[in-house]
Amino acid sequence: MNSFMSENTVIVGQKPTMNYVLACLTLFHQGFNDVVIKARGKAISKAVDVANIVQKKFIPTVKVKSLELGSERLVTEKGNVVNLSTITITLTKR
Amino acid sequence: MNSFMSENTVIVGQKPTMNYVLACLTLFHQGFNDVVIKARGKAISKAVDVANIVQKKFIPTVKVKSLELGSERLVTEKGNVVNLSTITITLTKR
Repeated sequence: MNSFMSENTVIVGQKPTMNYVLACLTLFHQGFNDVVIKARGKAISKAVDVANIVQKKFIPTVKVKSLELGSERLVTEKGNVVNLSTITITLTKR
Repeated sequence: MNSFMSENTVIVGQKPTMNYVLACLTLFHQGFNDVVIKARGKAISKAVDVANIVQKKFIPTVKVKSLELGSERLVTEKGNVVNLSTITITLTKR
């Protein structure tokens, strides 16, 4: 979890898919060989879209290096405990 | 893709998450060592939830054996071509 906010990480949330695709492309063009895409809950589908679009439409040499599922316990404002699924997709140019 | 409709596959769609969790548990109890969870598009997040719930709440010995991302081209009724992301999660009891 130390890498959660590292420089080459894109956290996928509620913005349009292409914003995150652009963020990944920017990181690759800055010279990172690996880009990590993270998402929780309903954004997981969007994270998978982002990984596919980067590979299929922009940088065909990019591959999925690793894929990880997980879950996080969150406490809502009302004090309820919610389990949220997470995904971590590492793309690599090498 | 030949395994898409094989006996030990659960296709996650628009029904409530627990329906699919129950389907996985049923397959494990029928004696399958592996259960394959598949989903497309927005159901991907739900498929990850299903995998997590089966592992964390019901059968702690179950592990993720393999994880695969992909995409499919679909033609809509209006003739538009849509790319849909897919996920395949294989859970194993071994």
